[in-house]
Amino acid sequence: MKVGIVGLGLMGGSLALDIKEHALASRIVGYDRNPKHKEEALKLGLVDEVYEEFDQIKQADVIFLAIPVEGIIQALQELTDISSDTTIIDLGSTKERIIQNCPPVIRPNFVAAHPMTGTEYSGPLAAIKGLYYDKIVVLCDVEKSGTLHKERAENIFVGIGMQLVYMDAHEHDLHAAYISHLPHAISYALANTVLKQEDPKSILILAAGGFKDMSRLAKSSPAMWSDIFKQNKANLLRSLKDFKKELRIVYELIEQERWEELQEWMQNATTLHKIL
Amino acid sequence: MKVGIVGLGLMGGSLALDIKEHALASRIVGYDRNPKHKEEALKLGLVDEVYEEFDQIKQADVIFLAIPVEGIIQALQELTDISSDTTIIDLGSTKERIIQNCPPVIRPNFVAAHPMTGTEYSGPLAAIKGLYYDKIVVLCDVEKSGTLHKERAENIFVGIGMQLVYMDAHEHDLHAAYISHLPHAISYALANTVLKQEDPKSILILAAGGFKDMSRLAKSSPAMWSDIFKQNKANLLRSLKDFKKELRIVYELIEQERWEELQEWMQNATTLHKIL
Repeated sequence: MKVGIVGLGLMGGSLALDIKEHALASRIVGYDRNPKHKEEALKLGLVDEVYEEFDQIKQADVIFLAIPVEGIIQALQELTDISSDTTIIDLGSTKERIIQNCPPVIRPNFVAAHPMTGTEYSGPLAAIKGLYYDKIVVLCDVEKSGTLHKERAENIFVGIGMQLVYMDAHEHDLHAAYISHLPHAISYALANTVLKQEDPKSILILAAGGFKDMSRLAKSSPAMWSDIFKQNKANLLRSLKDFKKELRIVYELIEQERWEELQEWMQNATTLHKIL
Repeated sequence: MKVGIVGLGLMGGSLALDIKEHALASRIVGYDRNPKHKEEALKLGLVDEVYEEFDQIKQADVIFLAIPVEGIIQALQELTDISSDTTIIDLGSTKERIIQNCPPVIRPNFVAAHPMTGTEYSGPLAAIKGLYYDKIVVLCDVEKSGTLHKERAENIFVGIGMQLVYMDAHEHDLHAAYISHLPHAISYALANTVLKQEDPKSILILAAGGFKDMSRLAKSSPAMWSDIFKQNKANLLRSLKDFKKELRIVYELIEQERWEELQEWMQNATTLHKIL
């Protein structure tokens, strides 16, 4: 089976490494519109071959779209003439808009996936073996995918050590807004707050594990994340509103010196312990 | 030299382990007002002896106050009758209010320290070796500490592998508000937002590294952190105001679909890369 990967960055490059490691493809080919990424991916041995043109990727049996979510929608429009036996799997962090924009003629070919993994780094040099191992992949609206394509996707994800979870795309995007996209927005906001106020020296001195953790996501690719925010706009705004409510609570409790209530509010937050 | 540690939790317990590891004391004694902590600390071998009464700690040559910041102020009031050769070192996350409330008679004995280390766990069972190694400790207003006491503190901190940084207490509290206390407030707020909206199953499925990092601080001890918020109220409110401004910016950019400006705003946040 020939696997083609569009986007040879962190997600696509790491996927290539894991697919090779688990011998799930006879050949792995790739495409990236960035010439530098093409070169790096070849040099790093992420894929066996890098195609010059996007259209060549249609030769693969399975095409992974490991690119920003707006790019996924564009790429789907250019894949309408693939064989009915060709599988397309996207790895985007949003699902509803992508599925809505999948051309009906290739909807059976398409499997919408969101692997719950990543790092704050991007590009081929960020690719690492084992990124997907023991992680969850959410598959959305699989009843609209053809059996061949659904099973191929499941086999590859299970083959690289992932756990499958099935979800409605609408539900996925709402949950992802709160649990993934909101934390990213907050991390960028915290980084900007501190960068505006503080000099680099103080940041270096006082940034213990706490700030490092809280600002790590703010190193994530702006191109990728602005696309995600765009596609999940309504849910993200809703989650931001809820978060602002909590901020108002903590602000008022501190301002009005209601320390016991502040402790209770914090105590409620610590119950996350029981889940994670 | 006999070292006494008041508060045998994460910070005090780990300190005892490191002082023992580096043979910096002939004897390590401890006190904790929580009987369970006393028992656990002895069982874990964190200290050589646990005192029944707080007053007994005055027998030590160096007394560490590894307790919540409000407790530090109380403890200082009870230590006014120590020998002029007895050193008191606190490990609190705020410094200005503590220094202001140190009784003048023991001000020379007192060294105000903030070790930039910790975990989200608390209690004697959370104590770990090496917690202080290769970390920064901020010493505040040391010109008000006697030479003997200042040097003892420096020797112990350097002895367990820490880097010394000197800072004015007022400056420390302002910087710490933005770089440490604000991230904690945000983490509690995020945890509460998600806990109110989401069921535990979705959290487990969708919480990849990002949410785990961002909510880790929300597991921190509410008793300890509400005290810190209390003592650093003005600075923390100021930092929360600044953070709310950034949140308003990201909210508006998304709401008004100003994607290019959103990317620029994110791009600015990623410059943190260059520092951390």
